[in-house]
Amino acid sequence: MADSPAPPNTMSAEAAPSERTRVKRLPNRGAYDRQTIYRIVDASISCHIGYVVDGQPYVTPTAHWRRDEYVYWHGSSASRMLRAQGTARSVCFTVTLLDGLVLARSAFHHSMNYRSVMALGIPQLVDDPEEKMAALQAFVERLTPGRWREVRPPTEAELKATTVMRLRLDEASAKMRSGPSVEDDADLALPCWAGVVPLAVQAGPLQPDALLPPGTPTPAYLGAFKLG
Amino acid sequence: MADSPAPPNTMSAEAAPSERTRVKRLPNRGAYDRQTIYRIVDASISCHIGYVVDGQPYVTPTAHWRRDEYVYWHGSSASRMLRAQGTARSVCFTVTLLDGLVLARSAFHHSMNYRSVMALGIPQLVDDPEEKMAALQAFVERLTPGRWREVRPPTEAELKATTVMRLRLDEASAKMRSGPSVEDDADLALPCWAGVVPLAVQAGPLQPDALLPPGTPTPAYLGAFKLG
Repeated sequence: MADSPAPPNTMSAEAAPSERTRVKRLPNRGAYDRQTIYRIVDASISCHIGYVVDGQPYVTPTAHWRRDEYVYWHGSSASRMLRAQGTARSVCFTVTLLDGLVLARSAFHHSMNYRSVMALGIPQLVDDPEEKMAALQAFVERLTPGRWREVRPPTEAELKATTVMRLRLDEASAKMRSGPSVEDDADLALPCWAGVVPLAVQAGPLQPDALLPPGTPTPAYLGAFKLG
Repeated sequence: MADSPAPPNTMSAEAAPSERTRVKRLPNRGAYDRQTIYRIVDASISCHIGYVVDGQPYVTPTAHWRRDEYVYWHGSSASRMLRAQGTARSVCFTVTLLDGLVLARSAFHHSMNYRSVMALGIPQLVDDPEEKMAALQAFVERLTPGRWREVRPPTEAELKATTVMRLRLDEASAKMRSGPSVEDDADLALPCWAGVVPLAVQAGPLQPDALLPPGTPTPAYLGAFKLG
């Protein structure tokens, strides 16, 4: 990850790299097929979105979700990020899953295992109230399937206060590294420990709200809660 | 996190928000003191760096580390990201720790617990070989203290093939959310479960390299390996 950027790609069902989107360094780390890209996007709860205001890039973390070929994110209608993104300028959507530290016998060959996706494009405002509601429903259902019918749905005012954006995953690429360290042959004799420290986002013990009525059941979707 | 951007701040030991850097929405989520910012930067292994090429923002994940008021990152000298960053243009350095899903009784009040830092500025190339070596040593020691003297140090050629950048954390801010969901009073009577699903990056069981000589001891710094 550290050693090369992953500017994305024109993504077809197969793959058709454009100049600004091909993974150039370590090209064996690049992937352009939709299923690989979707799997990585779906395995992560949050993304980082890059946008430009007055020539200055900003990178803002936000939660995302996917429906078919679109990734969605949302926020307050008063947010500067979302207003800046509503001006028909291209953004960069990046998702990264850190999978491990790769400890090599030489300082130089230390690395990270990761999966990442980068997508470029002009996001669209999801403005139609029905589409907006369906998108928010998909967001809740993606992480906690079945929860949408349990919670109070958004009021008209809440819907108005919420901006939903989406980006079509047309120009996108995935980049990843996995497996053990790559070593120079001469280093294999060194007495130093080498290997991988696997990393993953884990859910800890649930923290029920203090005001829950006693006996409120824990929903099944939380017992099965799993990331990645 | 989803609901507002965290454009950063002119950061002094105390706090002196500039117009482009003040946390505007939900300002109680913003923090500008150095110690808060350093703690968040140090708790995360990797960051996202935003930079602009031909008007297009790119967001690239990379590992980072901190020494005093500077954050560092590195990569291949052949990397497009690092070449683009070497042109005296301002970048955005963002670090995000996802701490939990906040499940409210209404769809609208669902949220995330997180800690994030955003810093803007023009990065510097760390060019002096001695400084570069010291920076790389700090990188290895930050995650695995004591490992630098165990591994083969970089050769001159490896050092040349590695680009090290640093950014002074002058214009930076932190943004965070913690604690339970905020609810409308009328929603408290709903029978729906509410609470927090805590999230954290965890290290899994070590994966020793297949070519390690039998009996190679596991270093103490891996037994104690902890993130966050």
